[in-house]
Amino acid sequence: MKAAFYTGNQKFEIGTCDVVKPAEGEVRLEVAYCGVCGTDVHIYHGVMDTRVKPPQTVGHEASAVVAEVGPGVTNVKVGDKVAVRPLKFGAPHPYDKGFNHVGKNLKFIGIDSAGAFQNSWTVPAYTLHKLPENLSLMHGAFIEPLAVACHDVKIGRVKAGEHCLVIGGGPIGTLIAYVLREKGAHVYISEVNENRLAMLNELGFSTINPVKENLLERIAELTGDAMIDCAFEVSGSAPGAATMTEVVNVRGRIVMVAIHGGEKKPVDLFKFFWAEIELLGARLYEEEDYEEAISIAASGAVPFEQLITQVDTLSNIQSVFETIDNNPAGMKYLIDCQN
Amino acid sequence: MKAAFYTGNQKFEIGTCDVVKPAEGEVRLEVAYCGVCGTDVHIYHGVMDTRVKPPQTVGHEASAVVAEVGPGVTNVKVGDKVAVRPLKFGAPHPYDKGFNHVGKNLKFIGIDSAGAFQNSWTVPAYTLHKLPENLSLMHGAFIEPLAVACHDVKIGRVKAGEHCLVIGGGPIGTLIAYVLREKGAHVYISEVNENRLAMLNELGFSTINPVKENLLERIAELTGDAMIDCAFEVSGSAPGAATMTEVVNVRGRIVMVAIHGGEKKPVDLFKFFWAEIELLGARLYEEEDYEEAISIAASGAVPFEQLITQVDTLSNIQSVFETIDNNPAGMKYLIDCQN
Ligand SMILES: NC(=O)c1ccc[n+]([C@@H]2O[C@H](COP(=O)([O-])OP(=O)(O)OC[C@H]3O[C@@H](n4cnc5c(N)ncnc54)[C@H](O)[C@@H]3O)[C@@H](O)[C@H]2O)c1
Ligand SMILES: NC(=O)c1ccc[n+]([C@@H]2O[C@H](COP(=O)([O-])OP(=O)(O)OC[C@H]3O[C@@H](n4cnc5c(N)ncnc54)[C@H](O)[C@@H]3O)[C@@H](O)[C@H]2O)c1
Ligand SMILES: [Zn+2]
Ligand SMILES: [Zn+2]
Repeated sequence: MKAAFYTGNQKFEIGTCDVVKPAEGEVRLEVAYCGVCGTDVHIYHGVMDTRVKPPQTVGHEASAVVAEVGPGVTNVKVGDKVAVRPLKFGAPHPYDKGFNHVGKNLKFIGIDSAGAFQNSWTVPAYTLHKLPENLSLMHGAFIEPLAVACHDVKIGRVKAGEHCLVIGGGPIGTLIAYVLREKGAHVYISEVNENRLAMLNELGFSTINPVKENLLERIAELTGDAMIDCAFEVSGSAPGAATMTEVVNVRGRIVMVAIHGGEKKPVDLFKFFWAEIELLGARLYEEEDYEEAISIAASGAVPFEQLITQVDTLSNIQSVFETIDNNPAGMKYLIDCQN
Repeated sequence: MKAAFYTGNQKFEIGTCDVVKPAEGEVRLEVAYCGVCGTDVHIYHGVMDTRVKPPQTVGHEASAVVAEVGPGVTNVKVGDKVAVRPLKFGAPHPYDKGFNHVGKNLKFIGIDSAGAFQNSWTVPAYTLHKLPENLSLMHGAFIEPLAVACHDVKIGRVKAGEHCLVIGGGPIGTLIAYVLREKGAHVYISEVNENRLAMLNELGFSTINPVKENLLERIAELTGDAMIDCAFEVSGSAPGAATMTEVVNVRGRIVMVAIHGGEKKPVDLFKFFWAEIELLGARLYEEEDYEEAISIAASGAVPFEQLITQVDTLSNIQSVFETIDNNPAGMKYLIDCQN
């Protein structure tokens, strides 16, 4: 049994996977595929070494097959195909108001504890969502980021016919764009990376490169001067944070998906007052977002094949991360965790 | 008939009031009292001379008696006591989505056209709200700012039992605090001006001076670590904009009431993502906010007498503005517009 351990400073080592017998309420999985998230890349670069304690197995965008169930588990049985919602809920705190997916004592499985880049993985049963027959395990690895997108669109209260702008067409922004399409919204994507722009155009999205075009003028044209009802800031950049307030119309919503670390960024607070706009933070997902993601994935609405840049084995994980570093235009990299 | 004209550069001149015969859908008022708003003080300081075209009559926090109604007016009759909602709605624009109180073509009566600092004032009939018998004309001058407060609390979706922090206990912040009390919320006010703090304490509010106390620790104590469900940024200051994100709990709301002009201010966008907090802009009021303000005012819930710093005549308007400039601790100054 094999596991990939992040050992610090851009290095993974392949070692032996502990096969952990599931305790009460737990399930042991044979991990099928696990996507590489931007956070995994951050971890690889050593910026999260105080939270991740190397050597540690990371990875949290997993599909899997149930191998063994612990006592009291009733929601899944051996052989079921599942997607994992990698949240370990902590003790409730008054500050959380019952929103345990963002609670003070939440632990993220795959960062705060062992993740999916291994053959065998034991997790709480409540983290598991069954995949329908017609959804492959490979595509099941997209459920986690797709649930992020479903959550974001839910927070944005998007309705059919609304004009929506996604700022930043990376993996998360692109999945948000697909969920918006499903809702019947008009979708525009702002992106600065020419390779990604080419890909997004090929996928049939209306795109804008704000470095080459006047974004506000283009949006005015595209919307007949109505401008944007709901914008999604998924770029994590200062120009993105400036654009988000400029594009929205009266009572327009901005969903803050990106993780803006570091220094506080300048924000146009005047516009909030002037046009009664809203900034709505969105983090991770709730149970229902997983169900929605599975239903959208099973409907065939997202062309996962076109979003997969590369699939490689657990044994080759080091080279996958090195490739990602050298190819910012890549979209989704998957690790086959049985090989 | 008398009117006060702002002539530029901290000067008012008393001149002759045009008695404008009400056209179709218009009403001529005998202005009773008009409060001095912070915006009027800004105008007085010359910072809005391009929008206000001196010499101009300003003032928009008015109570009045109906003197004459134009053809087709059915909502009021001669002799009615009214409060004025000083909004002249413009042509609808797709950008506005029907929210005409913040529409692209909205004109503000008393800034963009003649205001209430005069004996006689002619306005559209739809701007008028009847005052109940038991509400005096003097207190009727508080309906405009109280409607601002009602609107802000509505935007904040405040429910009974919630913990609310008002950042900035000026006239608007104080009225917000009263509306919050009416909703059954726990109210805390952060203020830096010692005179205002003394007054707010006398009014029975729980106050914090963030310069002298550790605001976050005090809020934690006061709320049993639950922190703030809804914060109101009414200070217009950079420290206020920093505090607003720090104090709120998971899914906490921040209502942006203050007008943050000038440079963009640094905002903690990370916290939006991390705790799914919301920033909600609020501007002016809708018709229903006036109705609510009138009902709260008539209930006696707001001790207007204690909020009035001074009442003086139209003839003395220059000295009132000079006094305001020298007394930042004053709360509400009223002009008696018939004398
Ligand atoms: N809210 C959540 O729970 C959650 C979950 C996953 C990821 N995230 C965050 O979402 C963000 C996006 O994730 P991702 O994996 O797609 O990242 P990514 O870095 O691949 O995508 C960001 C994209 O934004 C583009 N971009 C940069 N500057 C831009 C600008 N000025 N205008 C338009 N586009 C610009 C980049 O070219 C890139 O394609 C990250 O900040 C990530 O941390 C949040
Ligand atoms: N949204 C709207 O439609 C609307 C309507 C009216 C007024 N306003 C705005 O609301 C704001 C308040 O109006 P006002 O008339 O009460 O103004 P004000 O200036 O009298 O009140 C602001 C108060 O904030 C206090 N303050 C300053 N820094 C602080 C800090 N760091 N922490 C706590 N308190 C601090 C000041 O001492 C002052 O008492 C202004 O920005 C005004 O332009 C908005
Ligand atoms: Zn992730
Ligand atoms: Zn005002």
